[in-house]
Amino acid sequence: MTSSTIAQQLASKQREISVAEFFERNRQILGFDNPQRALLTTVKEAVDNSLDAAEEAGILPEIEVEIAKDGTDRLRVAVTDNGPGILRREIPNVFARLLYGSRFHAHRQARGQQGIGISAAVLYAGLTTARPAKIISKVAEEEGAHLLELSIDIQKNAPRIVSEDVTLWDRAHGTRIEMILKARYIRGRQSPLEYLRGTAIVNPHARIVLTEPDGTRITFERATETLPPLPRETLPHPYGLELGELGSLLRGSRRPSLVEMLTKDLGGVSPRVAREVLAGAGLAASAAPGSVDGPAQERLLSALQSASLLAPSSDCLSPIGPLLIKRGLRNVLGEVRPEFFAPPVSRPAKVRGGFPFLVEVGLVYGGGLPVDQPVQVLRFANRVPLLFQQGACAITNAIGSMDWRRYGLDQKGGSGLPTGPALILVHVASTKVPFTSEAKEAIAEDPDIDREVTLALQGAARHLKAHLSRKSRRAFASEKFAIIQRILPKLAEKTSGLVGRPVPDLTPVITRIMDVVTVEPVLGTEKTGRTGSLEITNYTPRPRILEVFVEGPPEELRTAAFEPAPEGSDADLGRYWWTLPKLMPNGRTRLSLRFPAGIEVDANDLDLYVAGIDEGHLLGADALPGDWEVRLPRAIVEAAEAAEAQGGVKESEEEVDYDAEETSARVADDE
Amino acid sequence: MTSSTIAQQLASKQREISVAEFFERNRQILGFDNPQRALLTTVKEAVDNSLDAAEEAGILPEIEVEIAKDGTDRLRVAVTDNGPGILRREIPNVFARLLYGSRFHAHRQARGQQGIGISAAVLYAGLTTARPAKIISKVAEEEGAHLLELSIDIQKNAPRIVSEDVTLWDRAHGTRIEMILKARYIRGRQSPLEYLRGTAIVNPHARIVLTEPDGTRITFERATETLPPLPRETLPHPYGLELGELGSLLRGSRRPSLVEMLTKDLGGVSPRVAREVLAGAGLAASAAPGSVDGPAQERLLSALQSASLLAPSSDCLSPIGPLLIKRGLRNVLGEVRPEFFAPPVSRPAKVRGGFPFLVEVGLVYGGGLPVDQPVQVLRFANRVPLLFQQGACAITNAIGSMDWRRYGLDQKGGSGLPTGPALILVHVASTKVPFTSEAKEAIAEDPDIDREVTLALQGAARHLKAHLSRKSRRAFASEKFAIIQRILPKLAEKTSGLVGRPVPDLTPVITRIMDVVTVEPVLGTEKTGRTGSLEITNYTPRPRILEVFVEGPPEELRTAAFEPAPEGSDADLGRYWWTLPKLMPNGRTRLSLRFPAGIEVDANDLDLYVAGIDEGHLLGADALPGDWEVRLPRAIVEAAEAAEAQGGVKESEEEVDYDAEETSARVADDE
Repeated sequence: MTSSTIAQQLASKQREISVAEFFERNRQILGFDNPQRALLTTVKEAVDNSLDAAEEAGILPEIEVEIAKDGTDRLRVAVTDNGPGILRREIPNVFARLLYGSRFHAHRQARGQQGIGISAAVLYAGLTTARPAKIISKVAEEEGAHLLELSIDIQKNAPRIVSEDVTLWDRAHGTRIEMILKARYIRGRQSPLEYLRGTAIVNPHARIVLTEPDGTRITFERATETLPPLPRETLPHPYGLELGELGSLLRGSRRPSLVEMLTKDLGGVSPRVAREVLAGAGLAASAAPGSVDGPAQERLLSALQSASLLAPSSDCLSPIGPLLIKRGLRNVLGEVRPEFFAPPVSRPAKVRGGFPFLVEVGLVYGGGLPVDQPVQVLRFANRVPLLFQQGACAITNAIGSMDWRRYGLDQKGGSGLPTGPALILVHVASTKVPFTSEAKEAIAEDPDIDREVTLALQGAARHLKAHLSRKSRRAFASEKFAIIQRILPKLAEKTSGLVGRPVPDLTPVITRIMDVVTVEPVLGTEKTGRTGSLEITNYTPRPRILEVFVEGPPEELRTAAFEPAPEGSDADLGRYWWTLPKLMPNGRTRLSLRFPAGIEVDANDLDLYVAGIDEGHLLGADALPGDWEVRLPRAIVEAAEAAEAQGGVKESEEEVDYDAEETSARVADDE
Repeated sequence: MTSSTIAQQLASKQREISVAEFFERNRQILGFDNPQRALLTTVKEAVDNSLDAAEEAGILPEIEVEIAKDGTDRLRVAVTDNGPGILRREIPNVFARLLYGSRFHAHRQARGQQGIGISAAVLYAGLTTARPAKIISKVAEEEGAHLLELSIDIQKNAPRIVSEDVTLWDRAHGTRIEMILKARYIRGRQSPLEYLRGTAIVNPHARIVLTEPDGTRITFERATETLPPLPRETLPHPYGLELGELGSLLRGSRRPSLVEMLTKDLGGVSPRVAREVLAGAGLAASAAPGSVDGPAQERLLSALQSASLLAPSSDCLSPIGPLLIKRGLRNVLGEVRPEFFAPPVSRPAKVRGGFPFLVEVGLVYGGGLPVDQPVQVLRFANRVPLLFQQGACAITNAIGSMDWRRYGLDQKGGSGLPTGPALILVHVASTKVPFTSEAKEAIAEDPDIDREVTLALQGAARHLKAHLSRKSRRAFASEKFAIIQRILPKLAEKTSGLVGRPVPDLTPVITRIMDVVTVEPVLGTEKTGRTGSLEITNYTPRPRILEVFVEGPPEELRTAAFEPAPEGSDADLGRYWWTLPKLMPNGRTRLSLRFPAGIEVDANDLDLYVAGIDEGHLLGADALPGDWEVRLPRAIVEAAEAAEAQGGVKESEEEVDYDAEETSARVADDE
């Protein structure tokens, strides 16, 4: 057999592969590897579509998921929504044709973007049970609902209408899909229940009802009646655009001139910048977009990417927001009651490959979370929980690449998932999330996403570190305090007895040895109401002029009444501060605060900082971080200078040095 | 805005998405996330195609990979092969159309199966540099070579011929593709070099030359002139076939009758079984395949899947084999020189979802491998190294789900990658590998694959455990031996001096205390040649009749000359055994062995077992495993009985018990 006949043989086998045929063979790529995962993927694709459609129509989503037995290894899955409904002519393609959809070409955050999901479920149902999917859909202005039975012609990737009818449906509008598939129902990890619970956490405006195969009904009630703002459609941003993409945009543009094309087909380019860019690339502003040849396209792209453009508008994104992240975590944790909620971090929008994205992180610690297990990770992309492929996800990788030992968690070798009683929530929102596969279960590695997730994690981790070191310092100093208060009087009594003298007053001695300022927050827990106080006591042997800083969730703190009123504040950051009256040795003073009803704040939400004394002499608060741009009041500086001039109040050189440092700028120890 | 107008608005946005458009937007799914990975994927797709084509044509592959700079962030990649060449009419579709190929519909192990890879590289090159790919291909019987410049029409997913020519090429046949793409060259992890090295390990019949951007040439020479047998095309096997697939096969069949369809379109169904199955399903053997309706298809599938069919033939698969796995590992480890090579495990072929697959595992331990790092994992699918997505791969997951602490490796919490100086190679070969994405970087979770990988790993791990426990027993006993030989004489000397008596002969006492039989293998290392011996010494206080067993690589041991000749052997398993002459206390005997030149065996390849004495009294060998079906020679049984009849030779009851147990059947402690 010669090579040529081989070449001919090989050629005779060359064939086009339909995309449906490809995914039928590679159904694991779409998330249909096994009956359990196939069920989850089916529910997920249907519910994601329902949420997208309702939100786009400005309707508060109301979704019903029914899962019922249908033979030994088959389930009937029906998902019904109150969305706007689908026009008759679109129904077959929407449900029975892969790579067909309305959101692929729109630059806006959406759950579904690929035009694959629900048709893949129909494909899988047909493959495993040979039964068509049953669709009912009704739009508001039509009397009847359309009822279609659909399957997919695999070789052609085209819908096949098995039956069709118009029927009455007791709904104003909405869509229902019902499929019979080889599937297995479980609860617990990676189950429809877990997926719907996660969905409810980050979509508190949706009401979702699940009926399980045994008839159990589980309802996730709406936590808010307000729809999140609908993300606006945006234009591709030049940062990260590839040459080939720019070429397509130029060829496809209907604008009469280059300057119009740059300002109206791209995001972030003002007319002035467009003219500068075109001049820089040696192109005429009035030239037709289609006339730009290869080398000129390269010049244009490079001029665009080195110009200083407007950042992408983030209104194409729909972040969850710190408040809902916190409320969501509280919901999911329920009985676990963690001891510490780090203030959720919401990073500003960035661009990668022309698409805006942003990252949000929540972190909780302690309480009933397991101590000797890897931390729990809740991953979300565009408000959809990611339940599979944790090990392949950029989120997990970013967590594993940080050295958590520096923030107080155990971590073998300083990489991989840390161990400890913590839970980390990460949400990546983007007009285009780079998933590792069509099953949309993990986010692909990307340096820009990695950087933003890492920065957000570090922000949350710094709060964790502060909490843990505060906790351990508090524990250490309290222990010391207790020992001194117990032992010293006994010692004095014994010694006095031995030498036959009266027992002296030990207060100044104890103060001398303790040498701390204590800050005790007494904030009412959720049960006892929202009033509280900070009690500050000077257990050091000299008078102190101190500044106290309270930092917490800005929205909640805006509602607080403080007594006395703060001396200054940065309400956007949630920072408030006071200069206390001069505190003599053993002197004590108090700040009180009160929140109106309905505001959820607890002691863990407040960070306390004190300036005017160094960290080593503080109990119950932290020294003011060096990166806070807060001007130290003149009074503190003067007091320090006076103390130094007097040669100190019988303090050791070292201590005076400490305090002198205190008044100078500090460098934060975290990066 | 009413719901209906919303429905119309949404409808107006519905569009078909071309598969090229989809992958342009989701290039990370194809392995083109970033410039470094894009380069690797491009090289991989081209080389995999070249290997497949050459092997299919029965040509020993000769592949040249040239990577050169082309501007600041661009590389020119050219891959040239000596394959059969591609006919002119197929060139555009093969290189510039996604989902087009010759191997998708063939049931046979191949590297490329999807018809996506190389066109995806052309797509990426066009996207990032707007430059067409340059193809030259020549088939043996044509005078000239075809030279085409190609790009992809994204909206249509169709090839666009930029230029075309016929040229002279100084080769009998072959193909060359050259692309310019945004890419970054690195060495080290996840680099083209690592990929080509891995490829060379499992494709020792290929010669591969890499030219790096700085001009360095690296050649992987052929290690064998023998092509692996070309996997044969097979038919879909009914086990694991889905209902929808059976339906497609029935509809698409050109056979005149059901009985012919079952026997000729499916694998494993004999005419007799086909008739039984059809009778069981209530179908006529002569009925036309296309006439079988839905319910009858269900009956037919269920009858097929409960029938006892022939196992799938494994000649559609191309395993690497134990010899090449070992040789490959030796190559890749080079200077590391591990202390232990577990005999590679090659599992028999199994079926999942109608597709045959098999699993091979190699494991090495110790030497220069790092002690405090997670074990290294080398993953291969159809002889292609998998370099990315390790965390998402069924192979990694199977490794992480085993409790390696039971086999002597550290593993936090008994799950996850174990820690220790080990390297594990796993190869999954199948007519259809279920990859997690089109980038083919990780194998999807699957219970059948998981089971086979786990069984293979356990096989290798048991050898590791045996090695480690032998090592620690040896270390413990040697230590004991050393202490006794050092301390006892001193003690005797001192005591004799004190009581004024001559120092007694301590040999019998030492023997009494040591109470071991030692086996010392002295096998020449690779440098000193392949001769060696086993020295067996009886340091117990009574005569011993022992059987010695040597187990090792069957092919190599078949060539060995033993002196004295073995009493028995199972050459297929690589087992040889001897009954030694009666060894008196302090007696010693020797077995010697010699290999002809060119046979690679070292001491680590041989496992030594002894029967006739229990494990606790053995140093340098293991007790005979209980699951070896080797009949104990009568002599040993008699000796044991005689010893018992005589009331033992002044041994404690306990020790006699030990030895009595020895002669009875044993149960292996591993599952």
